[in-house]
Amino acid sequence: MNVVKSMDEAWKYILEKLREKGATGKNAEIVADSLVYADARGTKSHGIHMLAAYLERIEAGGMDIEASPVVVKENEASVVIDACNGFGQAGVRTLADTLLKKAEHMPVVCGCVRNLNHCGALAYYTEYCAKKGYIALLFVNANPTVAPFGAMEAILGTNPLSVAVPTKDEPIVLDMASSAVAKAKIYQAAKTNSKIDASWALDEEGNPTDDPNRAIAGVLNAMAGPKGYGLALVVEALAGVLSGAGITKEVSSVHKGVQKGMNAGGFLILVNPGAFLSKEEYNRRMEQLIQDIKGAKPRPGGQVFLPGEIEQRRYKKSKIEGIEYV
Amino acid sequence: MNVVKSMDEAWKYILEKLREKGATGKNAEIVADSLVYADARGTKSHGIHMLAAYLERIEAGGMDIEASPVVVKENEASVVIDACNGFGQAGVRTLADTLLKKAEHMPVVCGCVRNLNHCGALAYYTEYCAKKGYIALLFVNANPTVAPFGAMEAILGTNPLSVAVPTKDEPIVLDMASSAVAKAKIYQAAKTNSKIDASWALDEEGNPTDDPNRAIAGVLNAMAGPKGYGLALVVEALAGVLSGAGITKEVSSVHKGVQKGMNAGGFLILVNPGAFLSKEEYNRRMEQLIQDIKGAKPRPGGQVFLPGEIEQRRYKKSKIEGIEYV
Repeated sequence: MNVVKSMDEAWKYILEKLREKGATGKNAEIVADSLVYADARGTKSHGIHMLAAYLERIEAGGMDIEASPVVVKENEASVVIDACNGFGQAGVRTLADTLLKKAEHMPVVCGCVRNLNHCGALAYYTEYCAKKGYIALLFVNANPTVAPFGAMEAILGTNPLSVAVPTKDEPIVLDMASSAVAKAKIYQAAKTNSKIDASWALDEEGNPTDDPNRAIAGVLNAMAGPKGYGLALVVEALAGVLSGAGITKEVSSVHKGVQKGMNAGGFLILVNPGAFLSKEEYNRRMEQLIQDIKGAKPRPGGQVFLPGEIEQRRYKKSKIEGIEYV
Repeated sequence: MNVVKSMDEAWKYILEKLREKGATGKNAEIVADSLVYADARGTKSHGIHMLAAYLERIEAGGMDIEASPVVVKENEASVVIDACNGFGQAGVRTLADTLLKKAEHMPVVCGCVRNLNHCGALAYYTEYCAKKGYIALLFVNANPTVAPFGAMEAILGTNPLSVAVPTKDEPIVLDMASSAVAKAKIYQAAKTNSKIDASWALDEEGNPTDDPNRAIAGVLNAMAGPKGYGLALVVEALAGVLSGAGITKEVSSVHKGVQKGMNAGGFLILVNPGAFLSKEEYNRRMEQLIQDIKGAKPRPGGQVFLPGEIEQRRYKKSKIEGIEYV
C-alpha cells in the first residue's frame, strides 16, 4: 500500500500525532519540519520513520515535551545550550539560531548542546545556516555501535558530521555517519539474504564478515578503518566531552531505554566567509570550484554530483509531487 | 646502507642543506623542525624525504627563500596570511602562532594562509596548538590526484585534514588524507608486484583495478566513496576557496612545475575548551573518553591506539635512539 502525501499533509500528520501526546507549539513544528525535510530529500531513515520512536519515548516519560532549550552560558562568540531532554530538533535548532545571531558580528562562532534527544538529519541544520550565508560544521554523538579500530566492542556511535557550504545557488551539503555504513543497511541485507561488504562489520569473534546475520550479532566498523575511527573520536570529543552531554555508553539509543532521555550532544561551528572574501569574490571562487568538479570526466556509467545535490533535486520533486510512503 | 642519526643531527643536516641554497634563519629552522618531527614519528613520507623536492624548487627559482609570511587582514578572531611563496612550513606555523595569540581571548578563532608551498605533516601544527591547550582543526588543499565520486579524472587533491585534541597527557592527533590511500603506497605495490585493494584507484578506463600499474596510469579514489569525496571538497572550499589560494588544478605538485610556487592554501580553526568547561572538568571528561576507548575489547591480534599514539611512542623512541634512515 503506497501512499503519496504532499509535504504539507505529511507535516500536518506529524503535528497531529505529536498533539495526541500533548506536544504542541514551536518545538513540535520544528520536529515536523525536520522529519518532512528528510523524507522530501529521500533520506527516509531520518523521516517520519522516526516518529514512532519519539512517540514511544514521550509515552514512556523519557522525553519532556514541555521542555524548551535554555542558554547555560554564552559570550559574543560561543554558547552552551541545555536541550533539557526535550525534542532533539528544538535543541540543535536553538543552537543554530543562537549562533546565527552571533555570527553576524564575528568571523567564527561555535557552541554546543547537551541533554539532547534524537535530532533527525544533521543536514537540516547545516543547510539552514548555509542558506543564511555561513559555512556550518555540525557534529553529533550517538550511542555505541561502532568498534574503535583494533577493537571488537561497540564503544563509539555512528557519530555523524555535516558540513554545509554556501554557494550562489544551493549550498553544498555533506551529511555522513563516520561508521562504514548505517546498521539499517545490514538489516536490509539480512532480510534479502544478500552478502555485505566485509569492511562494514565484524562478527562476534571480531573477524570481518560478509554475512549480515553474523554482522548483526557483531559490531559495526568505522568507515575507512583508522581514519573513520579517528573522525568518530573527534566527534565524540566535540559533541560529547565539550558539550557536557553523555560520553560513549552514557548515550542511549533512540530505540532503547525509552524511560530516560538519550543524553546525546552536539557541537556547531559557523564560519562567516565575509571575514575572508567579499561576497562577489566568494561566490565567484566557489563557482570556479563547482565548475571544476562538475566538469570532471564521468567514469563509465557514472555521474558527478555535488554533496547534497541528489537530495536537493529530490526535495524539489517532493515539493511538487509529494512524498511516497510505502 | 642504514644510517641512524640523532634528531639533532638530522636537524643540523637539514639546516646545512638549506644553508647551501642560501636559506637561513627562523624559517629554515621551522622547516627542519617539521621534517625531523615527521621522521621521528615514523611518517617518513613527510620527513627528510621531502627535502630534495624543496631544494629543487629553490634551485629552479620556484620558492622564495627570502619571503616571510605577512598578515593581509585580521581582526580579533580571524586572520588571513599570505605565505608569499616562501617555505610552506613558515606559512602554516605563522598562521598557528597568530591564531594562538587570539585564542587566549576568544572561544574560537580561525584563519587561512595562501601562496603556500608544501608544509609537511599537518600534525606538526595541530599537535603544537593542542599542547598549548586548544582543539585545532587544520585543512590543506593539494594538487589534483583524486577523482570526484562518479568521475575518472583527477580534480581534487589528497586534501588532508588534521584534528588535535588536548588531554591531560599527550594530545589526541588525527592526521589523514581524504584520499583512499597515498599514491606512494601504489608505487610501492608496483615495485613489489603486489595487488592493491580495488577501492583505492581507477584504471585509465575509469574502472576499479587491483593492478598497481593500471592504477598509476589511472586516478586515486577518495576514501570511503562519496564520504571522502565530500570531505575532500569541504577541504578545498576552506583551504582553497576561502584562503584565496589556488583551487584544484591551480595548485601544483611539490614535484612538478618547480619554476613556480605551488599556490596551495590552508585553513585552521582553534577552539578554546575553556569557553565550555573548566580545565579540571575538561581533563576529567576527556580521560573518561580515553578510558572507554582504551578499555575496548581488542579483536583477535588487534590493539587499540588513540589517533597519534603510535606516532607519539615512536617519537619518544626516536628522541633516545635516533632516526633510522635507509
